[in-house]
Amino acid sequence: MVSQLVLQELAMNGSGKILVAQGGGPTAVINQSLVGVVLEARRHLGIQRVYGARHGVRGIVNEEFVDLTQETSHNLELVANTPAAALGSTRDKPDLAYCQEMFKVLRAHRIEHFFNIGGNDSSDTVRIVAEEARRAAYPMRCIHIPKTIDNDLVLNDHTPGFPSAARFVAQAFAGANLDNAALPGVYVGVVMGRHAGFLTAAAALGKKFPDDGPHLIYVPERIFDLERFLLDVKATMDRFGRCVVAVSEGIHDAAGTPILARLAQDLSKDLERDAHGNVQLSGSGALADLLCEEIKAKLKIKRVRGDTFGYLQRSFVGCVSDVDQREAREVGEKAVQYAMWGDRGELRDGSVAIKRTGFYSADYELLPLEAVAGKTRTMEDEFLSPSGTDVTDAFRLYLRPLLGSGMPDAFRLRPNAVEKILKPA
Amino acid sequence: MVSQLVLQELAMNGSGKILVAQGGGPTAVINQSLVGVVLEARRHLGIQRVYGARHGVRGIVNEEFVDLTQETSHNLELVANTPAAALGSTRDKPDLAYCQEMFKVLRAHRIEHFFNIGGNDSSDTVRIVAEEARRAAYPMRCIHIPKTIDNDLVLNDHTPGFPSAARFVAQAFAGANLDNAALPGVYVGVVMGRHAGFLTAAAALGKKFPDDGPHLIYVPERIFDLERFLLDVKATMDRFGRCVVAVSEGIHDAAGTPILARLAQDLSKDLERDAHGNVQLSGSGALADLLCEEIKAKLKIKRVRGDTFGYLQRSFVGCVSDVDQREAREVGEKAVQYAMWGDRGELRDGSVAIKRTGFYSADYELLPLEAVAGKTRTMEDEFLSPSGTDVTDAFRLYLRPLLGSGMPDAFRLRPNAVEKILKPA
Repeated sequence: MVSQLVLQELAMNGSGKILVAQGGGPTAVINQSLVGVVLEARRHLGIQRVYGARHGVRGIVNEEFVDLTQETSHNLELVANTPAAALGSTRDKPDLAYCQEMFKVLRAHRIEHFFNIGGNDSSDTVRIVAEEARRAAYPMRCIHIPKTIDNDLVLNDHTPGFPSAARFVAQAFAGANLDNAALPGVYVGVVMGRHAGFLTAAAALGKKFPDDGPHLIYVPERIFDLERFLLDVKATMDRFGRCVVAVSEGIHDAAGTPILARLAQDLSKDLERDAHGNVQLSGSGALADLLCEEIKAKLKIKRVRGDTFGYLQRSFVGCVSDVDQREAREVGEKAVQYAMWGDRGELRDGSVAIKRTGFYSADYELLPLEAVAGKTRTMEDEFLSPSGTDVTDAFRLYLRPLLGSGMPDAFRLRPNAVEKILKPA
Repeated sequence: MVSQLVLQELAMNGSGKILVAQGGGPTAVINQSLVGVVLEARRHLGIQRVYGARHGVRGIVNEEFVDLTQETSHNLELVANTPAAALGSTRDKPDLAYCQEMFKVLRAHRIEHFFNIGGNDSSDTVRIVAEEARRAAYPMRCIHIPKTIDNDLVLNDHTPGFPSAARFVAQAFAGANLDNAALPGVYVGVVMGRHAGFLTAAAALGKKFPDDGPHLIYVPERIFDLERFLLDVKATMDRFGRCVVAVSEGIHDAAGTPILARLAQDLSKDLERDAHGNVQLSGSGALADLLCEEIKAKLKIKRVRGDTFGYLQRSFVGCVSDVDQREAREVGEKAVQYAMWGDRGELRDGSVAIKRTGFYSADYELLPLEAVAGKTRTMEDEFLSPSGTDVTDAFRLYLRPLLGSGMPDAFRLRPNAVEKILKPA
């Protein structure tokens, strides 16, 4: 039983308010992290109110908060199992002035802990806001909670959201391979990933029998050469009579120009660009279509089909890794624990990271924001085969446990050929 | 105990050989029908060998058979749960001469029953081969087993393969809607279907809350007017601040010209055509891209994203309706039973059909081949709302039980707005 005195002291010392926000692209499990924060926070005496910002950092500058303390724990559990971002997200990338606006609002609401769930940009936002708070001598702890299907946060074994998206990609290629075996030809599947090829490489986990596709995998970590690509496709067709290809949307030439931009230029096609002048890679089927046209034109292959996995790979309801769910929940819980119990000295703020401890087991740690913020991880060399068009067993060993339980498996009929009567061999 | 005499008589009277083939686009459950045929056939004393044709009718003319009697029942069960077409499929559409070639091979192998699993074209092939057999007074029973994700076979309540593909589309739109709610804008998802809109209409089953998407659904059963479409999108954006659209690849103008062909013409883009001069609609992201470009250009909306569900909707491993699995298995089993026990008079040959008997229960019947072959079902008027951009409750009632058990559900946070401090309302 807590005495009235203690409660009064708590109330005098702080507001007991924390704020949580979600940023960047939605994932299958980002709501697990949100609910991890909310439910863990409710257990702490020092936390009286859990606010959520609507549509990420934009909701902070616009002062649009919802009181998650008034949500039932039952509904929170249901929301945790729903993909996308229940609070809403944003593509805003705050600069210093934006972060100063955010800080103004956080201080006005007497927020004591700020939790931001997101990728590179979100961690950098947390870093700047934390600096503002320190400069103003305002006692707020800022914690970044990892999330990105790109798996491109440094110092993390992997990031929540990636395993479920990887599972979608692996299942999609397992099916595309079967479809392609039934109706042979060339199949090109384009997967998300501007700089990091982890998600595209996950296609390899859809492979089972030795002649299964994907037969070729192209990631942004390697230079893409169109002539070499066409030779690879031809060699695979010659060998297997069919060819399944996994391609990252971010593949680029030696000069760093996206292949999409190069192929589109040849056809004088206009492409959408973002505020930084980067070509919009997702949300269009152009790269798959352009690669298929090249294959048809240059290799004279009739049946060439392309799919762009698009938003399905991050938003499809009903394809999720249970390992990913569990870890996404835990990084949210750990964030609150680090905030409430952590060392209040050096590591006042930080970024929660997943580290691998066994086969398979994981644990969490709090890293300095500076170590993670704004940095991009790409696929390690040991994960890519020397050919540049396949992954290594090291990658299979790395990814397989993350995909979780209940992965569907593919089976085939054994060959028991019947002797020919009319046209004997 | 069967006497030696009976066995001898059986051996003298017939070869005891049957043949099964798979045709057209692979589905999530076509192997259930194949295995239904094989396992049921093994129970019949009159059947000694079950042959499978590799790659459908092409495997018949090429005399490429596998002996499925030498397959383990354990592996058959595993293959049944694997999507695509385990025997291989083909896009060949046999004419009379082709069917005569097929018949020559079937007779040479003394095939007594021919089972062909497929859609419209496959049923027509069965009809022609059956006529050849009758003309030659060759005693062969020919049975068509239904399969098509398009759901466009007449006199069937629905067709195996459709429920699982519909489930994929519903789950995809449930997720796309959540993603679009998190990052608002326009989302266009293009679904397979040249003449029948059933699969696109299934997008409506991904909708739960009243403001959920898909907000607009366009099927080939209704004329597509680009101006009207843009007005619909604008009205939805004005109302909800976002817009999720489901579009059939087969949408066309009043003259019957596919919208893809019209938009591509404006951009003088070449399109692949099949042997009949039909524009290749699948395997390209062009329609989604062209519609998105129209929306961006005419409505000045910034965030417009398009996905083409492509081959994922029919081949994705791990998204299947248990009702669909069960029924696909049963149409295979029933086909053998009709062949072995059926009336050998009028209905010598036939097409197995699913009829609905309750909410939800189904039974099977054998229809004359002429009643089904080469005919195309489209969506009944009662399934489409007067606006032409939504389905009716009759359609929801029709489709929901087919999607099977364990459909994922979506949940959202309830609005508990926190009072603003800096910018009070």
